[in-house]
Amino acid sequence: MLRDVAPLQTATSEQLSFIDNRKYLTAFRNCGAGAILVHPSLVDEAPSSVCLLVTERPYRAYAVAAQAFYPERPPLPGISPDARIEPTAHIGDGARVEAFAVISAHVRIGRRCTIGPGSVIGAGCILGDDVRVGPHVSISHAIIGSRVRLYPGVRIGQDGFGFSPDPEGFVKVPQLGRVIVGDDVEIGANCTVDRGAGPDTVIGAGTMIDNLVQIGHNVQIGRNCVLVAQSGISGSTRLGDFVMIGGQAGLVGHLEIGDGARIGAKAGVPNNVAAGETVLGSPAVPIKQHHRQVAVLKRLAVKKVG
Amino acid sequence: MLRDVAPLQTATSEQLSFIDNRKYLTAFRNCGAGAILVHPSLVDEAPSSVCLLVTERPYRAYAVAAQAFYPERPPLPGISPDARIEPTAHIGDGARVEAFAVISAHVRIGRRCTIGPGSVIGAGCILGDDVRVGPHVSISHAIIGSRVRLYPGVRIGQDGFGFSPDPEGFVKVPQLGRVIVGDDVEIGANCTVDRGAGPDTVIGAGTMIDNLVQIGHNVQIGRNCVLVAQSGISGSTRLGDFVMIGGQAGLVGHLEIGDGARIGAKAGVPNNVAAGETVLGSPAVPIKQHHRQVAVLKRLAVKKVG
Amino acid sequence: MLRDVAPLQTATSEQLSFIDNRKYLTAFRNCGAGAILVHPSLVDEAPSSVCLLVTERPYRAYAVAAQAFYPERPPLPGISPDARIEPTAHIGDGARVEAFAVISAHVRIGRRCTIGPGSVIGAGCILGDDVRVGPHVSISHAIIGSRVRLYPGVRIGQDGFGFSPDPEGFVKVPQLGRVIVGDDVEIGANCTVDRGAGPDTVIGAGTMIDNLVQIGHNVQIGRNCVLVAQSGISGSTRLGDFVMIGGQAGLVGHLEIGDGARIGAKAGVPNNVAAGETVLGSPAVPIKQHHRQVAVLKRLAVKKVG
Repeated sequence: MLRDVAPLQTATSEQLSFIDNRKYLTAFRNCGAGAILVHPSLVDEAPSSVCLLVTERPYRAYAVAAQAFYPERPPLPGISPDARIEPTAHIGDGARVEAFAVISAHVRIGRRCTIGPGSVIGAGCILGDDVRVGPHVSISHAIIGSRVRLYPGVRIGQDGFGFSPDPEGFVKVPQLGRVIVGDDVEIGANCTVDRGAGPDTVIGAGTMIDNLVQIGHNVQIGRNCVLVAQSGISGSTRLGDFVMIGGQAGLVGHLEIGDGARIGAKAGVPNNVAAGETVLGSPAVPIKQHHRQVAVLKRLAVKKVG
Repeated sequence: MLRDVAPLQTATSEQLSFIDNRKYLTAFRNCGAGAILVHPSLVDEAPSSVCLLVTERPYRAYAVAAQAFYPERPPLPGISPDARIEPTAHIGDGARVEAFAVISAHVRIGRRCTIGPGSVIGAGCILGDDVRVGPHVSISHAIIGSRVRLYPGVRIGQDGFGFSPDPEGFVKVPQLGRVIVGDDVEIGANCTVDRGAGPDTVIGAGTMIDNLVQIGHNVQIGRNCVLVAQSGISGSTRLGDFVMIGGQAGLVGHLEIGDGARIGAKAGVPNNVAAGETVLGSPAVPIKQHHRQVAVLKRLAVKKVG
Repeated sequence: MLRDVAPLQTATSEQLSFIDNRKYLTAFRNCGAGAILVHPSLVDEAPSSVCLLVTERPYRAYAVAAQAFYPERPPLPGISPDARIEPTAHIGDGARVEAFAVISAHVRIGRRCTIGPGSVIGAGCILGDDVRVGPHVSISHAIIGSRVRLYPGVRIGQDGFGFSPDPEGFVKVPQLGRVIVGDDVEIGANCTVDRGAGPDTVIGAGTMIDNLVQIGHNVQIGRNCVLVAQSGISGSTRLGDFVMIGGQAGLVGHLEIGDGARIGAKAGVPNNVAAGETVLGSPAVPIKQHHRQVAVLKRLAVKKVG
């Protein structure tokens, strides 16, 4: 009988664990779990006393199992007497609005949403069903899909960085667009997503965004993209579907990044990236070229010493 | 009759558009706008049916036109009964203070300011006229000029990162300075600006700061500088006027950056930069040298394969 | 009689100053302070009229002196009538809870803590004594030691970035761990610290974290580490004690960084770093190797021109 999930290092005989990274082989060999989800290639390394659940995708299997142990529940419905909600706003059935939240005029919030303490939803914003908004989130000029999660401190819909850099003084360009966030998107803590300047800023369904990511005005992100922490996308750049952006990577403005492209961690991307391509470095180049550059430089530096 | 502004891709016959980047030539050629602001060099590419407004500075002209369609209005004055304002604070005529804002003792807020929901103004801070403070902003130990905009989640005036890194344990250095923000400054969402350690941290008039930018203690920034998203300036570094810092660039502490210097995106700057110079790369070097380094490395990496 | 501390540039005859960086020799030579803390090696450069306090560690001495002039005081105790505190929460003697703070069920807050305006402490969190929580901080799933400082906008305990990136759609991995923060830790403005996925995320006692730093799930940071602004540590990476991470540096996941290792500013670290080692660059290499690479590249680029 398995009663819980646990990491390899601490799992006991009533717990399910998984291995997905060869760096943890030592912990795997000594693991006391009741059962371990494991890839076929690692079966030979397994401790003898443990039940193995062999699968091509152990991390996915673990995710599904852990969800079964820890199912997500809809929020306890209720509207705090300390929330301030404009009379023209509509809050769906089963929603929860916490203390000191501010819901402005003509906002529409779907069913079973949670609006965290102190969060501010600006006039006219629309949220789908089952949206989870953490504490201290601010949203304006935005349409948010269903099952979206906005982590604490997310900033959506403020003005983009738009001005004409005139020597006599900068002239601000009015920012007139919206932010459109698709279904099932997650946006990490303290991320910033600016409203469009004229067109909208768009984040496609299923896209996952880590903490402290910057999305400039007019950016269009496709479906099921992944943006790792502290990356930044400059204004008007467009990403296809299933694009992966590594941590601290940065893209200049007005680029086209094709479907399935992969931008490595810390890459600085000055040019378009074709569908399926992987780039790395700053300025970013195709990954093989990057590895050759790194290797060449290493050899040259060694030679100089000799 | 033009009734609105719109991007090239969607503008219709009653809308004004502009082109400022050759990447959008295709959209320009197919544009259905009533009129387009355009540089003389692109006139030959224009669609035949469209009225052209030819100007050397189409983006600036668009900014001015869009401001005419969407003029900024002063806030609807009023102080929310849910704001908490100390009796010794002074709020100027025509100001708006939203719900759950906290205005501490001896604060002075100018005329027609907006203090967004939940924002916190610490004891003794001074704000000029027409300042717009978004939601969830915190300000302490600061003097803010007029017409300043602070976007959601901006942090101004907290302690800088100052301690003596002693092996027996770090010894905190009391942070005693202020933050002085000039007129017409914009500071983007979730930026952090630390108070000075002894001297003040200063941001000169007209400077534009994008989202998620870090300004360390004692930093002095001149007038009309531009700091793009996720850039960072370490403690005690000084920037002249009209300095441009690209996205994700970083400057170490105690540097002098001359007037009009340009620091490229993702640059890592370990040394002073002379007035008017453009640097790129990490460690940053003059732009021509950087381009040669990139080119040399590219050639060497290709050769190695051959 | 010394009545205050001040920087070299402005100190007058009743003020104490210090010099710790040769960049300020000119200011030192012209300094009008009553006394200056100075390293023996700089005594010859001193202005003749000034009393010198010679010490091997002038910055540390200044820190101690400034603390004497500006001692930290415990907060004025009191709980704002505008705070919302669950009846099952416990607030220690002498604590201060400001307006619009939210303290959830079963929270335990130690003696003389300050909870800043609008901050949100999630269910079951524990804070030690003398903790200072700034405005707009959110904490969940966390145990916080004593004398910890959390600057404005810090995010502790939200879900980590955990999902199985399946082509059919991403499968979220429930995040089940906590955040454990040791005594005397400082976490800078707008930092993000995710809860563990299965194990906990741990920040060791005495560690100093600057602004806008990202700490991924399961990260373990030792004692007395220093993380400079905008750096990021990816999930499951482990740092020993006295590790120094420069500004905007990034570490990939699942690494081991030994005691006393130094990661330079902007470094991108793809591999383990041994105790005591200093690495720089992206990909990061030992510092001497990095300097050789930079020098080689510089020479090659010059040659190409000739």
